[in-house]
Amino acid sequence: MTDFFAGMDAIKYEGPDSDNDFAFRHYDPDEIVMGKALKDHLRFAAAYWHSFAWEGGDPFGGPTFQRPWYPQDDMGRAKLKADVAFEMFQILGVPYFCWHDADVRPEGANFAESRKRLEEIVDYFGEKMEATGVNLLWGTANLFSNRRFMSGAATNPDPDVFAYSAATVKACLDATHKLGGQNYVLWGGREGYETLLNTDMGRERQQAGRFLQMVVEYADKIGFKGGILIEPKPQEPTKHQYDYDVATVYGFLKDFGLENVVKVNVEQGHAILAGHSFEHELALARELGIFGSIDMNRNDYQSGWDTDQFPNNVPEMALAYYEVLRAGGFTTGGTNFDAKLRRQSLDPEDLVLAHVGGMDACAAGLKAAAKMLEDGKLEAAREARYAGWQSDTAQAMLAGDLEAAAARVEAEGIEPEPRSGRQERLENLVNRYV
Amino acid sequence: MTDFFAGMDAIKYEGPDSDNDFAFRHYDPDEIVMGKALKDHLRFAAAYWHSFAWEGGDPFGGPTFQRPWYPQDDMGRAKLKADVAFEMFQILGVPYFCWHDADVRPEGANFAESRKRLEEIVDYFGEKMEATGVNLLWGTANLFSNRRFMSGAATNPDPDVFAYSAATVKACLDATHKLGGQNYVLWGGREGYETLLNTDMGRERQQAGRFLQMVVEYADKIGFKGGILIEPKPQEPTKHQYDYDVATVYGFLKDFGLENVVKVNVEQGHAILAGHSFEHELALARELGIFGSIDMNRNDYQSGWDTDQFPNNVPEMALAYYEVLRAGGFTTGGTNFDAKLRRQSLDPEDLVLAHVGGMDACAAGLKAAAKMLEDGKLEAAREARYAGWQSDTAQAMLAGDLEAAAARVEAEGIEPEPRSGRQERLENLVNRYV
Amino acid sequence: MTDFFAGMDAIKYEGPDSDNDFAFRHYDPDEIVMGKALKDHLRFAAAYWHSFAWEGGDPFGGPTFQRPWYPQDDMGRAKLKADVAFEMFQILGVPYFCWHDADVRPEGANFAESRKRLEEIVDYFGEKMEATGVNLLWGTANLFSNRRFMSGAATNPDPDVFAYSAATVKACLDATHKLGGQNYVLWGGREGYETLLNTDMGRERQQAGRFLQMVVEYADKIGFKGGILIEPKPQEPTKHQYDYDVATVYGFLKDFGLENVVKVNVEQGHAILAGHSFEHELALARELGIFGSIDMNRNDYQSGWDTDQFPNNVPEMALAYYEVLRAGGFTTGGTNFDAKLRRQSLDPEDLVLAHVGGMDACAAGLKAAAKMLEDGKLEAAREARYAGWQSDTAQAMLAGDLEAAAARVEAEGIEPEPRSGRQERLENLVNRYV
Amino acid sequence: MTDFFAGMDAIKYEGPDSDNDFAFRHYDPDEIVMGKALKDHLRFAAAYWHSFAWEGGDPFGGPTFQRPWYPQDDMGRAKLKADVAFEMFQILGVPYFCWHDADVRPEGANFAESRKRLEEIVDYFGEKMEATGVNLLWGTANLFSNRRFMSGAATNPDPDVFAYSAATVKACLDATHKLGGQNYVLWGGREGYETLLNTDMGRERQQAGRFLQMVVEYADKIGFKGGILIEPKPQEPTKHQYDYDVATVYGFLKDFGLENVVKVNVEQGHAILAGHSFEHELALARELGIFGSIDMNRNDYQSGWDTDQFPNNVPEMALAYYEVLRAGGFTTGGTNFDAKLRRQSLDPEDLVLAHVGGMDACAAGLKAAAKMLEDGKLEAAREARYAGWQSDTAQAMLAGDLEAAAARVEAEGIEPEPRSGRQERLENLVNRYV
Repeated sequence: MTDFFAGMDAIKYEGPDSDNDFAFRHYDPDEIVMGKALKDHLRFAAAYWHSFAWEGGDPFGGPTFQRPWYPQDDMGRAKLKADVAFEMFQILGVPYFCWHDADVRPEGANFAESRKRLEEIVDYFGEKMEATGVNLLWGTANLFSNRRFMSGAATNPDPDVFAYSAATVKACLDATHKLGGQNYVLWGGREGYETLLNTDMGRERQQAGRFLQMVVEYADKIGFKGGILIEPKPQEPTKHQYDYDVATVYGFLKDFGLENVVKVNVEQGHAILAGHSFEHELALARELGIFGSIDMNRNDYQSGWDTDQFPNNVPEMALAYYEVLRAGGFTTGGTNFDAKLRRQSLDPEDLVLAHVGGMDACAAGLKAAAKMLEDGKLEAAREARYAGWQSDTAQAMLAGDLEAAAARVEAEGIEPEPRSGRQERLENLVNRYV
Repeated sequence: MTDFFAGMDAIKYEGPDSDNDFAFRHYDPDEIVMGKALKDHLRFAAAYWHSFAWEGGDPFGGPTFQRPWYPQDDMGRAKLKADVAFEMFQILGVPYFCWHDADVRPEGANFAESRKRLEEIVDYFGEKMEATGVNLLWGTANLFSNRRFMSGAATNPDPDVFAYSAATVKACLDATHKLGGQNYVLWGGREGYETLLNTDMGRERQQAGRFLQMVVEYADKIGFKGGILIEPKPQEPTKHQYDYDVATVYGFLKDFGLENVVKVNVEQGHAILAGHSFEHELALARELGIFGSIDMNRNDYQSGWDTDQFPNNVPEMALAYYEVLRAGGFTTGGTNFDAKLRRQSLDPEDLVLAHVGGMDACAAGLKAAAKMLEDGKLEAAREARYAGWQSDTAQAMLAGDLEAAAARVEAEGIEPEPRSGRQERLENLVNRYV
Repeated sequence: MTDFFAGMDAIKYEGPDSDNDFAFRHYDPDEIVMGKALKDHLRFAAAYWHSFAWEGGDPFGGPTFQRPWYPQDDMGRAKLKADVAFEMFQILGVPYFCWHDADVRPEGANFAESRKRLEEIVDYFGEKMEATGVNLLWGTANLFSNRRFMSGAATNPDPDVFAYSAATVKACLDATHKLGGQNYVLWGGREGYETLLNTDMGRERQQAGRFLQMVVEYADKIGFKGGILIEPKPQEPTKHQYDYDVATVYGFLKDFGLENVVKVNVEQGHAILAGHSFEHELALARELGIFGSIDMNRNDYQSGWDTDQFPNNVPEMALAYYEVLRAGGFTTGGTNFDAKLRRQSLDPEDLVLAHVGGMDACAAGLKAAAKMLEDGKLEAAREARYAGWQSDTAQAMLAGDLEAAAARVEAEGIEPEPRSGRQERLENLVNRYV
Repeated sequence: MTDFFAGMDAIKYEGPDSDNDFAFRHYDPDEIVMGKALKDHLRFAAAYWHSFAWEGGDPFGGPTFQRPWYPQDDMGRAKLKADVAFEMFQILGVPYFCWHDADVRPEGANFAESRKRLEEIVDYFGEKMEATGVNLLWGTANLFSNRRFMSGAATNPDPDVFAYSAATVKACLDATHKLGGQNYVLWGGREGYETLLNTDMGRERQQAGRFLQMVVEYADKIGFKGGILIEPKPQEPTKHQYDYDVATVYGFLKDFGLENVVKVNVEQGHAILAGHSFEHELALARELGIFGSIDMNRNDYQSGWDTDQFPNNVPEMALAYYEVLRAGGFTTGGTNFDAKLRRQSLDPEDLVLAHVGGMDACAAGLKAAAKMLEDGKLEAAREARYAGWQSDTAQAMLAGDLEAAAARVEAEGIEPEPRSGRQERLENLVNRYV
């Protein structure tokens, strides 16, 4: 045991009236909701990068945190970091974690050394996972931080960077597979452009599509059964990213014949930055058949960059989990806290409490969503609104042509009278559950 | 002749040094640029709705304009409106115009009467087109203003509204065909939602897809050879519209097998509201093979709604027309001024001058774009940046698999060294042409 | 009694478990919170314009509502509208209402007729207020809808419009005074510009300042004891409005010597459009000593225009009312629902339910805020954070000069060590109360 | 001479037709415009931080640049950096530069050492300024990057940080004074908050006001005759910054009696992030009497963070310089390029060319603005629009009261008829000059 979290015990559920900062008030992992334990609904994961690799810097300021595993350039300290991380996983009782290669091992002098270091840490993770029962929700490759990726990874003008990216993803996919990861995620933070003036968008799109096919082919070859997920984001760090939002990713997948294989990992903050509500992106992914997993955080509504805050607005989260439940819940996916402390939150306690608050808010949101769904009033109202489409006439019209429809309008003197959409009544209804 | 534009003659080209408000300084219709007359490059169209049907209201205020064809509820005044419109087309020398059914004729007591009124105006247009040589760039149906469309047209929960919309589009497509329209456009301003709570997004998407197929089938049946175009817009009037942006429309077209038939009409303001630059949307449409036509206007960068202002920033327009020229220029498409006067611009002169300024800015932009393309420096820089992909090794890598790429990275010790993207140098280069 | 709300009784409090759509679940008007009845804390008002004068149009569509008092060009129907309005006030049990002159009477053929019509309606209101016990929270003049105000009211380039505006405000202030209004509000929706190119911003600012002084002088002369309030909004309908936000209004008031007389009416939606959270604007108004009243609504976070939706997010409202309570609560001010139905919400029931939901959300928010404040943990944490400033050294430093501070830093070797801001812990704390 | 810019000579003016990347096409420093040399109008300054201290990182990636003066923790390399910087100043021919203490010297082990290092570099600068004729436009203190400032500088909850900040500003003001700086600038990047929950906004505002008074008092004491400037920015790095925009700063200055002493340094990008056009902020500063200097850059209109790009849109810059010229031009202020290379622009050439392009765009913008002003058409139109206010009646009305105005409206039957605002015509006019 390290002494980083000295004095902190495993967080327990104490119910809504508890005034213990270090207790869950809503998240009782074993509570049965809609026939399934909460922990199996939510499938919480902690994110290695924000909690253990990010040092508290922002575009106008340097690191604020001071952790015993800094500077992060040493394999010994990388293992200390892993020790502390797993201690936090256990304090929180999260069943999963997620990582990029760059989070878990220092970069080596060359690719081979970096790969070997990753393998060494993966073995170390393996032991700790075995010992603690914590599993891997997903692994991923960081193809955006190092300067070699400044002009893209798969979409780089330099084919050597494509090669390097391919080698990196192979290593990360191997590692994910070895650790029994539930999914493998791709986030294309540099797959986009700073200026159209120097960019061949069509060519880059082809490179990205082929790259993704190669990933899918390799996953298949090694027998990786987990999900392959793309995480949409509209921009930042680049001016424009190709995986802009769920709808954009869908068109891309269709183009490369991958829409039945690859799914999306939807992040709240990225949805907001793309001009969508989180629930929109989730509902759309479900309707398009590509819903996979979620990155749970919140973006400040008045800030135009990715703020990755811990979530806390329960009514909003209820709407998000409602769409998740309507999709049948998670299969390989889960709730990954892609959220970071504010850079002024220096203390180990802050790290734990941020997760406690987020987990509680998720649990409260999911329970409200379940009540909404079980109660059925919302779905009944939705069905009633479209009931007219059940008629034979309506179905025949869909199967018919414009002329038949037009003829009927004139013959029957159709002059549709609008009916109330009842939005406020439905919003009131939602407020009963949250 | 009406006396609305009394005293105003046809606008002539007088060259950049003219200080005549009522002259073109950049648009010489017959000037040959890249082997083609400017008028054939730009294919200008005036929009009937903004210039003749909009009365100057905004969400906080009523009409400000006072035109002799108000109130717009009478067929006689509808013809007066047409008289004035064609007078403006001739003053400006625009070769095309565009309309919605609702712009050109008052709504009738029922569908049949509305249709007949449209037919009557279409005949009237036919005579005027014959007399003036002005042609139709596109027609379209207004499926958003009347209260019957408040919950959508093709995506309405009520199948009768679908039927009514089908009948309306048939009538408008017939009219467009009769007038020799170059294109037929669909803008789904109510195809979206105000709240997810009462919306079945999957079902509505199916309705929209089937509707579009029906439109394509009917166009084919009547022998309409023009383009069928969708105009993306992210939101407003609804919270979310299904035709969010070019990428979203592409995925939708793929899903319904229409990506080789239907193209996009891209609007500057809608691009901005979706979080994209205009040139991004144009370039993307080109790369996806769905570039059709443009709605030229500008959106105030500090306003979050559709401001539809006349364009005036030549450097921005040069970048837009650069993408148009790279797409090979317009075929059926053109430059439609989907722009409206500010509501304080009350005078007939304002209407003419707004177009004069916009046309001049377009001409200056296109000429700069042509110089950029002919000069070739920008394209040479782009090609040089990707030159590495011409090698056999690079092409083999694309055709190969992750393992081969990874093996090569280690075997050859590939450690890519980034190269400058030279953005500022390229931006300077662009500034030489504008 | 009209039959508009036929079958709807007064809404009663039935507690959180009620599943009656037409009941309050949180708003028990007589519940004592922090020593005061809820109704006296919240001081709810209904807004005449959105609920009774707005017809359901938006920039892309015409009216959707069909009310028996349309068209609104007749004094008889204006009284019918008043009858219905007061019926709604009683059904809801709101103690206050608010109006613009343009909402309550049709425009006359000239100013004098408009004024007389207002006086006639004011008398009619007087009788109804007497009969029902409903009072006036504030009156205001609509100086933005009519085309005469298209270029501003007090800031118009034409002094006749200034005169007309002065006459209008005098009439509205007289009416407000006669009805015992608690406040008089000014919203400068056209006091701004569409383009700087034709605007003399300095001159217009002087006009606006002098106009406000004249209003204050006149209020004083007639013995009006209510609050005089300005309502900030950054833009829309204009590109830029002079009363941009609370901080801007404060500088303006200081410049014209009115910062101790005039206060602000802060609207949630306008705060959002200015890039601020609602609680920010409220807290700032309090700290600057100009907090007056609130317009309660919510703005869609993904829409860039003023959506004026009924509020429903309780955690956000708790933060807003927390700032109100920290300001000592309302004096002349109150909670005005400057919120409108979605244009698809056609039914009289929708109008009632929208208010019921909003009132309930406000009540829940205020009660949570009161608990937060009574509990004291949040304020204790805030005080502890600044405790260092209580020392004599710190106070002496503030009274001293740069040199003394600099000398002490070197002499004492001051090297400040940052302390955690504990944001997530405080956010968790807030979530205990909502 | 270092070899960083090996092979690059001083940039010369070659006129608009030059196709030499390394030449000015618009900036002829000695060209006389409105009676003054261009160099004296524009007063260009290069910013030390972006060009020499920033290493190319962004929130998702590390450094991309590799400069011989990295790592920046050594006084010898700090002098090498200075050598290179002055070489660039001479290549460009910029008459001024600007710095923060943190840019020019490595942080010491304690305050005293940091101060001494600053003094050492200041002496080094002094020699180089003497040798090259380059002068200091302004100095400033970096009170935001180091973790000690994470919760604010003057507004910190810890008075020791206030003291440290005071000592730092004293040192920087001393240094600026010693180097004959034309201005001293304050940018409060951490003077604001991340969450209202832990913030005492009123107290922090008092701290900020007193701090600024102390700065002004000290400047006066040491005989510093330059301008004291505040640089507004709405947010980033914090959620909200107190110096939000020009209007907010004005109210703050009024409150602390500094509105006649302190002026603003207005940045294009910060204006955009606050929801304003650059020309709005400049015009407002002028009208409020607090216009000081400008930070010239551009913010990507589709990005929600501070992109600090080199400016290139001449029509926009013409509008900005038009407001500068209307303010009488710069006195102590100037045009500081607070702009950074894109992180992919790795080469020394990129650094030079970015400035060349920016300087050229500024020169073209200023020359267009001068033509606009000299031509007088725009000002004549503006004056004509307000001409009615010259009448005695209008002036008497302003001096009078509401009752008199109201009486006159009825007596004279005033019914104002709106007049066209002619926006498009004026926009066309502007396009003649750019």
